[in-house]
Amino acid sequence: MDAVNIDAMLARFAEHWSPKKVAELNDYDVKLVKVQGEFTWHRHDETDEFFLVLDGELTIQLRDGDVLLRPRELYVVPRGVEHCPRAEVETTILLLEPRGVVNTGDTGGPLTAVAQTLAS
Amino acid sequence: MDAVNIDAMLARFAEHWSPKKVAELNDYDVKLVKVQGEFTWHRHDETDEFFLVLDGELTIQLRDGDVLLRPRELYVVPRGVEHCPRAEVETTILLLEPRGVVNTGDTGGPLTAVAQTLAS
Repeated sequence: MDAVNIDAMLARFAEHWSPKKVAELNDYDVKLVKVQGEFTWHRHDETDEFFLVLDGELTIQLRDGDVLLRPRELYVVPRGVEHCPRAEVETTILLLEPRGVVNTGDTGGPLTAVAQTLAS
Repeated sequence: MDAVNIDAMLARFAEHWSPKKVAELNDYDVKLVKVQGEFTWHRHDETDEFFLVLDGELTIQLRDGDVLLRPRELYVVPRGVEHCPRAEVETTILLLEPRGVVNTGDTGGPLTAVAQTLAS
């Protein structure tokens, strides 16, 4: 594996809510995603989910309040906790979660996306 | 858990080569570390190790060549691979690895540090 330059990777795709795998850490995937607008309420019963905002601003809506993330801010959504990400402006995020986690969790639906791999 | 502001966390410590835990992701720890100078050659036989450079410049020396990481560049050192991080200038890094991994791996010695937790 070579070093992964996040900005070079981000330049290679434009679509929103479609995570791209850029590295592996044991049985976890390191992914980049661009988002804008509102995702869908969902939860992951089997795993926590790590979000690090790189650019933009992300609101992680939870049933009991919002978590606002600006660049160089991170948050871990605990397993089983319903959440719905939302971004007013285009926002880029580094995600970490176990391999095979489905982005829409228990909810499924049209926003479900299989993470493509971007080779470095 | 609240959002973790990386810069606020980095402002809370100064020592080098002493990772601070700022979040948990399942059985993994999310850590921040400041480094300068050369660490020690070591390996982790049981796990990969994730490095994301935030500021500065990190050289991960491997037995068959160096990996240079600038800000917004990441690298995963595979399990079992000997490595020795080195930084000319003070460099800040986000680390991810399973809980309980010892920073000096199989080598031990005076640079061995138990990660303190910084509450957000």
